[in-house]
Amino acid sequence: MKARQPRGFVDRTAADLIAQERMLGVIRRVYETYGFEPVETPMFEYTDALGKFLPDSDRPNEGVFSLQDDDEEWLSLRYDLTAPLARYVAENFEDLPKPYRSYRAGYVFRNEKPGPGRFRQFMQFDADIVGAPNVSADAEMAMMMADTMEALGIPRGQYVIRVNNRKVLDGILDAIGLEGDQPRRLTVLRALDKFDKFGADGVRLLLGAGRKDESGDFTKGAELQQDAIETLVRFLNTPEIGELWEIFQGKIRDGRFGEGLKELSEIAAYCSAAGYVGRIQIDPSVVRGLEYYTGPVFEAELLFPVVNEKGEKVVFGSVGGGGRYDGLVSRFMSQPVPATGFSIGVSRLMTALKNLGRLDVAERPGPVIVTVMDRDRMADYQAMATLLRNALNAPGRPVVPVEVFQGNPKQFGKQLQYADRRQSPCVIIQGGDEKAAGQVQVKDLALGKELSAGVEDNAEWRAMRAGQDLVPEAELVDAVRRILARRAGA
Amino acid sequence: MKARQPRGFVDRTAADLIAQERMLGVIRRVYETYGFEPVETPMFEYTDALGKFLPDSDRPNEGVFSLQDDDEEWLSLRYDLTAPLARYVAENFEDLPKPYRSYRAGYVFRNEKPGPGRFRQFMQFDADIVGAPNVSADAEMAMMMADTMEALGIPRGQYVIRVNNRKVLDGILDAIGLEGDQPRRLTVLRALDKFDKFGADGVRLLLGAGRKDESGDFTKGAELQQDAIETLVRFLNTPEIGELWEIFQGKIRDGRFGEGLKELSEIAAYCSAAGYVGRIQIDPSVVRGLEYYTGPVFEAELLFPVVNEKGEKVVFGSVGGGGRYDGLVSRFMSQPVPATGFSIGVSRLMTALKNLGRLDVAERPGPVIVTVMDRDRMADYQAMATLLRNALNAPGRPVVPVEVFQGNPKQFGKQLQYADRRQSPCVIIQGGDEKAAGQVQVKDLALGKELSAGVEDNAEWRAMRAGQDLVPEAELVDAVRRILARRAGA
Repeated sequence: MKARQPRGFVDRTAADLIAQERMLGVIRRVYETYGFEPVETPMFEYTDALGKFLPDSDRPNEGVFSLQDDDEEWLSLRYDLTAPLARYVAENFEDLPKPYRSYRAGYVFRNEKPGPGRFRQFMQFDADIVGAPNVSADAEMAMMMADTMEALGIPRGQYVIRVNNRKVLDGILDAIGLEGDQPRRLTVLRALDKFDKFGADGVRLLLGAGRKDESGDFTKGAELQQDAIETLVRFLNTPEIGELWEIFQGKIRDGRFGEGLKELSEIAAYCSAAGYVGRIQIDPSVVRGLEYYTGPVFEAELLFPVVNEKGEKVVFGSVGGGGRYDGLVSRFMSQPVPATGFSIGVSRLMTALKNLGRLDVAERPGPVIVTVMDRDRMADYQAMATLLRNALNAPGRPVVPVEVFQGNPKQFGKQLQYADRRQSPCVIIQGGDEKAAGQVQVKDLALGKELSAGVEDNAEWRAMRAGQDLVPEAELVDAVRRILARRAGA
Repeated sequence: MKARQPRGFVDRTAADLIAQERMLGVIRRVYETYGFEPVETPMFEYTDALGKFLPDSDRPNEGVFSLQDDDEEWLSLRYDLTAPLARYVAENFEDLPKPYRSYRAGYVFRNEKPGPGRFRQFMQFDADIVGAPNVSADAEMAMMMADTMEALGIPRGQYVIRVNNRKVLDGILDAIGLEGDQPRRLTVLRALDKFDKFGADGVRLLLGAGRKDESGDFTKGAELQQDAIETLVRFLNTPEIGELWEIFQGKIRDGRFGEGLKELSEIAAYCSAAGYVGRIQIDPSVVRGLEYYTGPVFEAELLFPVVNEKGEKVVFGSVGGGGRYDGLVSRFMSQPVPATGFSIGVSRLMTALKNLGRLDVAERPGPVIVTVMDRDRMADYQAMATLLRNALNAPGRPVVPVEVFQGNPKQFGKQLQYADRRQSPCVIIQGGDEKAAGQVQVKDLALGKELSAGVEDNAEWRAMRAGQDLVPEAELVDAVRRILARRAGA
């Protein structure tokens, strides 16, 4: 049988996990300063509780991993952390403080065709306020996103939180004659969402007959009339709320358009009063794919340039977003429950921080290794390791790993190779002669390398025992301490 | 639609998650002092890669959650963290240091009938050494388990790591005529596993015709002959290796029995040399349900008494265990790859620590809450919260949460109820009069409660404005700091 990770899933190694843990700690701290507390739901939900809100939900049975339970009910793995939160809040409504502020980091699953950078299990880190009816809460979420970017070391000017409002989009779509035409509305929203990627001309094609990309793949368009297309492009090109209002007020009868613009003004005012001018911006092109949003939507975008897979220089783009979902909790309840929140794509954000040199990937020290010269004296070596481990590790101080070599001890050279591989600061050696004399060898591996750099002759090298210290057994701990201190000082 | 968590799955709240995070941090630190580093595999594996090693695997399609991918391959959610690690190591064999020491905490899934305390998603925290051929590694794992118990605050004498060897069990089973009879061997192993629960008489029934429990449920027995049963019971009752050897050496031809006993002696010697006498004990009744074990097996048992669901006083019992699984990695490879490791049941361990009063569930301070007196001045309140949040939160110091009330602000009483509910140390109040005077009210909720405890009259209470401070706007931060300091001192 061949060992292979399943398609679209990945294994994650130490450096990656340690960096992630530190990053999540920074984010968690920001959320906690805003009064959010952790909550966690299981990976599974009843399929009907999750609803069909994925961008792909027009294709049946796509997007989620589902299976039937032995009582015939369908279970699905969560595809985001918002739908399960809505279920949780509805189920525990009476027991929760309102507003209810919570956060959670966790894996979500998408049953999609895997591709480069497209994984079927990935981590999101969400924060939500449930029971917050006013857009001041949406403004607060946008500010918290901005604070999170800065806490992670992303400099001001290199990120922006873009804010739009679904009500405004809905009003525009009604105005161009798409009232009630759900499938076409979706096609149009997806086209608008591509504005930053394809520009006005690309969006014009997607709103009209369709667009062929470089590879020849054709995306069918929304087949709107020319004037409707120009109305939408003009809308995308108008980031000023006042201007939007002037242009569109006569043309749009739907009250939601005006209501949405008013909410955007309020959000802008809140952000400006709290000092977030420029960091949070109104932008009519923000759509957000998920269908459960009902009001303000926002997106955290990183502005520094990266080179994409085609070799083009592009801005890094979105690392997360969210919005208001007033209908999601009330699906389960007989009363309206307003809510707003956002989600950070954890691995995408890690990639961004790596690009910026802001990901904390500090190497941790390798283990002190007690080598095995004489297999029958394994108990002695193990006792030595226990002694060192206890002596070198004090609570609250950084960990000093200590281990006995547990591989096959036959070839001593392999033990030293292993120590090298693990970036061990020093190895402990005690053969029969040393034992008889009550002594032990402590070898500083870094110093050994330095000292022996100029040595060409094997015999000479052995004679000088580069970096090696012969000490009485009772001084073992001190000798190791000296080496660790030397390395820490280097 | 009714909101309900799926059968056998649970939601987890803040206190639980914070306590778990702290507990995992303690365990992680112990593992790291032994030179282990984190690694993580995805929730899914190809079904065939997981193998069928669950105790229930004699029932087809039980035990795991599986689904078919769109390329017809079967995927399963991992049921433990060992089988995926074996796949990972085999797939990355050349790139890993050998021995390879790793740890991981993560959710595993069991497709079982849910019951009280039986969950279908639960967390394990594993550590493994792959590429360690000698039982010195098994001894080290047992010692690390003991260290973990003590680091968590479980006093010496309240836990024991029990060690046995599958080779010894195998030798005994061959000796009583079960060579090659896999189904019956399994029934016998499961019966032996019940020794601490049902005692010798219960095990006799399970090895013979079968056992009826108090509820009348009948468990079919292994139907062994009387002398075979007595051999096994005598084995269970003999915890001394030397004695075991004397009793059984003549009767058992299989070499593995002797080899197993020799390994147990070695483990005992290593543990004793490193100072673990009594904390790690040889015990022939330790079985461990999983079928992939090939050598030493061990179990961490907590010895303090608890009352079970039937009202009986019993010892708390197992919180984890493990053993040697030399065949699991080599299933994927053309060479033998010896390995040993263990797994801690995270929620079970949390329950144990809660019972011992050792679970760190320190309450965290609630948020400072800026109340909303005048809805039109939301921007001011938000700015005040931002000011306080930035002033009160310094890097490296405990978090001081600050939030604006984001619920419906109409009834001011509800805002104070919310503050109470969140255990807020203080609330900020600024109505029109205060604003006009450039002032703000800061109300110490704990002090307010104390002061007003003796006050019966409502008007009197309002007049004394218990715990309330009217300060100039510029002194807001200092006033809040004073209240926080007072509470910290209390």
